[in-house]
Amino acid sequence: MAVYTRVDETSLTKFLSLYGKPPATVFKGIAEGVENSNYLLESGGERFILTLYEKRVAAEDLPYFLSLMDHVMEKGIPAAGPVRDLQGETLQTLCGRPAALIHFLEGMSPDTPTLPQTVAAGAALAQFHLATEDFSMKRPNALGPQGWPPLIEQSGERLNDIEAGLYQELTEVAQECLDQWPEDLPKGTIHADLFPDNIFFNGEEVCGLIDFYFACTDFFAYDLAICMNSWTPEGSLTADNAHSFLRGYEQVRALGEDEMIALPLFLKGAALRFYATRAYDWLHQIPGSLVRVKDPSPYLHLLRHHRDHPTAFLENIS
Amino acid sequence: MAVYTRVDETSLTKFLSLYGKPPATVFKGIAEGVENSNYLLESGGERFILTLYEKRVAAEDLPYFLSLMDHVMEKGIPAAGPVRDLQGETLQTLCGRPAALIHFLEGMSPDTPTLPQTVAAGAALAQFHLATEDFSMKRPNALGPQGWPPLIEQSGERLNDIEAGLYQELTEVAQECLDQWPEDLPKGTIHADLFPDNIFFNGEEVCGLIDFYFACTDFFAYDLAICMNSWTPEGSLTADNAHSFLRGYEQVRALGEDEMIALPLFLKGAALRFYATRAYDWLHQIPGSLVRVKDPSPYLHLLRHHRDHPTAFLENIS
Repeated sequence: MAVYTRVDETSLTKFLSLYGKPPATVFKGIAEGVENSNYLLESGGERFILTLYEKRVAAEDLPYFLSLMDHVMEKGIPAAGPVRDLQGETLQTLCGRPAALIHFLEGMSPDTPTLPQTVAAGAALAQFHLATEDFSMKRPNALGPQGWPPLIEQSGERLNDIEAGLYQELTEVAQECLDQWPEDLPKGTIHADLFPDNIFFNGEEVCGLIDFYFACTDFFAYDLAICMNSWTPEGSLTADNAHSFLRGYEQVRALGEDEMIALPLFLKGAALRFYATRAYDWLHQIPGSLVRVKDPSPYLHLLRHHRDHPTAFLENIS
Repeated sequence: MAVYTRVDETSLTKFLSLYGKPPATVFKGIAEGVENSNYLLESGGERFILTLYEKRVAAEDLPYFLSLMDHVMEKGIPAAGPVRDLQGETLQTLCGRPAALIHFLEGMSPDTPTLPQTVAAGAALAQFHLATEDFSMKRPNALGPQGWPPLIEQSGERLNDIEAGLYQELTEVAQECLDQWPEDLPKGTIHADLFPDNIFFNGEEVCGLIDFYFACTDFFAYDLAICMNSWTPEGSLTADNAHSFLRGYEQVRALGEDEMIALPLFLKGAALRFYATRAYDWLHQIPGSLVRVKDPSPYLHLLRHHRDHPTAFLENIS
């Protein structure tokens, strides 16, 4: 649910004029993304998404995100890239917020991805990794393994309200990850949040990647692990989708042996990272708020599965 | 903010097939209306609004609302009417909710209506009244003067937290309205909520009336009074917009003398009705909720203005 900042018509018309666009004929707040205010707008027969960046996105990161979106769109990846204004700029201010006009992408994100969709998503992630090889901007991953112990501390003992001993268990897993985390693997720009709701499909064809606001510089294989976890039907621990995602990825970019060896650790770490943020949101939700807080428990199952059967995924890969 | 019910792709595709429409290519929850879940969807190159009716709309009233919307659309009023499915039905069930597919209307609702827009809105209300003369279904106005004393009781003494003596004051005004309310005036189907955010414009031309979910059977002049209050810049008590709205209305349907005499009472009553519901929502808001509760105070100013200067509007009308 995401319309935090209301945009009046006069400000909108002035904003659109910076892009040489006529006044909007359609303007509707949409419930997409949880961090920003998003509107679907039509101007001169074209559709756009207008995004106003709210406080949870650091303003100093916006040039990175918008440059990245522009870069991958220019490379032919079907990504939601920003529109340049008449001065060539992609970042504006609207109603007191940083704001960008984003190209509209058709398509539907799958509720329950099919295996062919999962293969196609894997290929799209690899294409994204290849397309960013010459993207020179860097952004550290604040939600990488160094960030997990403080993240777990933020929930602290309250984790034990979810399950006795959970605080200790997560702290130990975070430390294991830190101890074992490799230092040198193929690295570049990762999406870091390419869940099924961030890919649009037309049938089995990928037609849009969205929501680049967690993108950062990290190991490609860790990005792959995030997706192998998230494209697995949550809580089911069926590995078919994870395998399909990996197969699709390797159709475009084959993993090195060192990356394959690191994969079980990355799968466990990625499960911990998403469990830790979801458990935090779960423990800190506002009663009566309409913001939908995701149930964290499937990621705890995944985390334990990866910890207890670290090579199950590898062994099953045909 | 209004997406309460999540619709999965499989259910949506099945729903669209009832209308002979292909699977959606765009599907976005929109923040329009506070009572229902609304989605903008595209199917086969056409745009629609999908509305799922949540608990605040009584399911037994839906045939009335949808028939009305269909009726006025058929009469050539630019109203958001329902699409008929292959069986000719306008009401379906989707994800456990009553649901309707609504024709999409382009246009923008004005933040600050211009005088020409206000004149056009007045004419549109009169056209709506004339178009429903042969609409035979009836629905009592639950928010008419009989409903105001219990509505005020729901907030009760808490009104005095807003301002000392307010509970007593509102109770007295409600009783005055009841005592003076006429029994016999031109009557028919009224929109009852045609605020500026429920009319879309393309420039100065009305291109859409929406949100018929307060429509009921009542005096036409009371509907006019609701609009004369709501098209007045809130809190400013500038009468220009109210006059313009009346002038536009009378271009299409002239008021009778008895209606003109009742207008000051209706203006006061309409201000009370909207103050009472907004004060209730204000006193019962959920902390941290993203639902935007409207400040009720401009309607208290309007109410007192109409009470203390009952003929000011009439005298000023040129």
